[in-house]
Amino acid sequence: MRVVDLIRKKRDGHELTRDEISAIVAGYTREEIPDYQVAALLMAIVLRGMTKAELAALTEAMLNSGEVLDLSSLPGVKVDKHSTGGVGDKTSLILAPIVAAGGLKVPMISGRGLGHTGGTLDKLESIPGFNVNLSLGQFVAALDQIGCGLIGQTKEIAPADKKLYALRDVTGTVESPYLICASIMSKKLAEGIDALVLDVKTGSGAFMKKEDDAVYLAELMVETGRRMGKKMVALITDMDQPLGRCVGNALEVVECFEVLKGNGPSDLRELSLELCGWMFYLGGRTDTVNAGKQLASDLIANGAGLHKFREIIERQGGDPSVMDDYNKLPQAAHKIDIVSKTTGYVASIACEQIGTASVVLGGGRERKEDAVDPSVGIVLHKKVGDVVASGEAICSIYYNGDGRLAEAVKLIEHAYHISTAARYLPQPLIHRVIEAGEQTNGSVAAQEASDNIPEPTERITGVTE
Amino acid sequence: MRVVDLIRKKRDGHELTRDEISAIVAGYTREEIPDYQVAALLMAIVLRGMTKAELAALTEAMLNSGEVLDLSSLPGVKVDKHSTGGVGDKTSLILAPIVAAGGLKVPMISGRGLGHTGGTLDKLESIPGFNVNLSLGQFVAALDQIGCGLIGQTKEIAPADKKLYALRDVTGTVESPYLICASIMSKKLAEGIDALVLDVKTGSGAFMKKEDDAVYLAELMVETGRRMGKKMVALITDMDQPLGRCVGNALEVVECFEVLKGNGPSDLRELSLELCGWMFYLGGRTDTVNAGKQLASDLIANGAGLHKFREIIERQGGDPSVMDDYNKLPQAAHKIDIVSKTTGYVASIACEQIGTASVVLGGGRERKEDAVDPSVGIVLHKKVGDVVASGEAICSIYYNGDGRLAEAVKLIEHAYHISTAARYLPQPLIHRVIEAGEQTNGSVAAQEASDNIPEPTERITGVTE
Repeated sequence: MRVVDLIRKKRDGHELTRDEISAIVAGYTREEIPDYQVAALLMAIVLRGMTKAELAALTEAMLNSGEVLDLSSLPGVKVDKHSTGGVGDKTSLILAPIVAAGGLKVPMISGRGLGHTGGTLDKLESIPGFNVNLSLGQFVAALDQIGCGLIGQTKEIAPADKKLYALRDVTGTVESPYLICASIMSKKLAEGIDALVLDVKTGSGAFMKKEDDAVYLAELMVETGRRMGKKMVALITDMDQPLGRCVGNALEVVECFEVLKGNGPSDLRELSLELCGWMFYLGGRTDTVNAGKQLASDLIANGAGLHKFREIIERQGGDPSVMDDYNKLPQAAHKIDIVSKTTGYVASIACEQIGTASVVLGGGRERKEDAVDPSVGIVLHKKVGDVVASGEAICSIYYNGDGRLAEAVKLIEHAYHISTAARYLPQPLIHRVIEAGEQTNGSVAAQEASDNIPEPTERITGVTE
Repeated sequence: MRVVDLIRKKRDGHELTRDEISAIVAGYTREEIPDYQVAALLMAIVLRGMTKAELAALTEAMLNSGEVLDLSSLPGVKVDKHSTGGVGDKTSLILAPIVAAGGLKVPMISGRGLGHTGGTLDKLESIPGFNVNLSLGQFVAALDQIGCGLIGQTKEIAPADKKLYALRDVTGTVESPYLICASIMSKKLAEGIDALVLDVKTGSGAFMKKEDDAVYLAELMVETGRRMGKKMVALITDMDQPLGRCVGNALEVVECFEVLKGNGPSDLRELSLELCGWMFYLGGRTDTVNAGKQLASDLIANGAGLHKFREIIERQGGDPSVMDDYNKLPQAAHKIDIVSKTTGYVASIACEQIGTASVVLGGGRERKEDAVDPSVGIVLHKKVGDVVASGEAICSIYYNGDGRLAEAVKLIEHAYHISTAARYLPQPLIHRVIEAGEQTNGSVAAQEASDNIPEPTERITGVTE
């Protein structure tokens, strides 16, 4: 087998075998196959797509390039959630403690902010002392003893993905639903989970602006996980405006504490309960999703979720007293309000621009090596459909140093669209639910009939992998 | 400008500008852009194609990556021919002396055998002493004094093509009509020519088995040359059986001498005259192609072509007495005949297999580092349409050492198809003529209307560049 022949095979639209894909991934990980051959192959995959069997083989090969956690000795079902990334998307910090409090294991390996979106690790690190860099041994021990661990990707997990992602980044081959799916799923499956709930974002603040693209990626991931014997569901959820009211690391942590205390904004609470409901259901903890949502609601009401978060923070070296005194979290030095110039209804909020404003303030990274300021961010007082009066604050900006404040203000002012005429209602929070074996249009037979998944109409332009 | 953004642009089907293409080629030649980025871009070009403007820009950038001969100080029009490669395709050795004898300059930079096809340089080197490695200065001097030089590609000519070809070879990106066109044309245009006649082969012994693919490549090359201000024509010619009767380096040289002496097989003579006719016509030596053919025919009859070849051989260090005594050329130690097992008509000759048989005998290279045995080869006594009796020789094999003789015999026996029923006639020698600005179907308007040349139906599987 010559690598060049495999590249030509893919280029010409033929299907690579499991062994061929496995040999390429293994050879590349061992640095026996050069970057330039893999770059050509990746471009051929971007433009030719992959069959379901190829995608499963790629995911499996990437998964097996490193350590795969075996949590079978731990009692209880292991379940996780993955989001493709958004603005104000902080549900992990709510559902991880709730689901662990409900008796399932939540082995959560998360990422950092990417582009205009926030990252779970950055949010957690705004809690003084919180260590996201547990060893795999410490991670497993935390799972065993308190049912949850929240860490970053280690070098042992899916090293092929690390190499491939770095190459894709510089060769224009990031934007492939197949390669995105394999990247996400290889890392998630390495966690040793039994079930996975995917939160695939769509709308102006998501990487997949078009719902069709989000659905396509969701179907690929659900199908790939199902082939690997995992219970899978994907929720296509709204990211046409920020989730909740807070954007920025410490601000978002506070909002999560508030939801766990029974407060918090309704959209964030609702989506968190929905995701918990699916995790409990797929994890076999409840017989229905609704029963799972009810259980999650109960675990908020009785304080068990909040208590579990306290345990998690303690376990990972953080200061749990921040839950009682938010002033112990990093505080921005300054705050200004953005006020509306007109009276009307909030018609839309260009969501990516809000995320970018937070990055500009220092809440995210523009280059990999940038440090994140955990204290800065934006609190939205008005969301889509809300009435706003001229002169009324639509949001507050929390900042340190005003070097780029004007830039952030401009982004936010341009992001808000106030209608003086009609009232617009926000998009539904959950657009669609995609379960294993189901087709977008509800036709199971159609999906099984063809192993070649049709191409999405629009190219996906990025995603948190 | 980031290279990754240019890759993405091409990937998504957008058109790269002249400056963008120029920057990539220059950066790659200077080794500032890494192989992996160019590999991804090449694959995107293979799968997305190029517009005419992009192709012209790529060709120009590759041409300008090295030295471009300026022959404007030499009197006379400079004209060359390029063939995409075939079996027994030896016309260069006939037309170069004839056209030079006719008063035009023929600055011919040729290649070696590739795959199952022969190469002009290998054939010339079977003449004892013949030096194909003249410096560019010696080459220009030869052109000035005797009107013709026959050399190999030097390191000064189109270095970008050398780097790109080596990368394409290992990344599955050889088979693109756009990249093939840019590779061929950048080298040919570096010769400082005014006009170029392309002999684009099609049929079982050509790299482009399908005529549509040959026509598509021919149109690209003619269009690209026209954009660079060159007079261009492409002849789509038959390679469904070997050209002439000899396959093998010294054997083919003898056949060329014979044509120049007024003998030789009719198909080789006819095609050589046709190509000469076009060279004389495009070079402004005659008013019509037919007048050019007549001139070529006269230059054979009066011995001027043969005399010019003698001058060329002398000039490039070879022994011209081989023209008078073929025994001074390398001789194979052994000869055997392949005889027909049936009586009938030759229905077809699988042409690539004949070429491969010659390679197996040592007449070509299986690996780059292989040496070529100039003496071996095959003489075809029977060609398509010929009557053959049971027991009659259909061809003779000239060989040294019988290590792989059986393999060659088997290839040849399988290549010949004898029909006991109907008589098949050979394909016409010239399938089609493509002049600048003309469309396959004769519609000039259609070609001008669209800058996006439509994709060929079948992928081109290789070509002598």
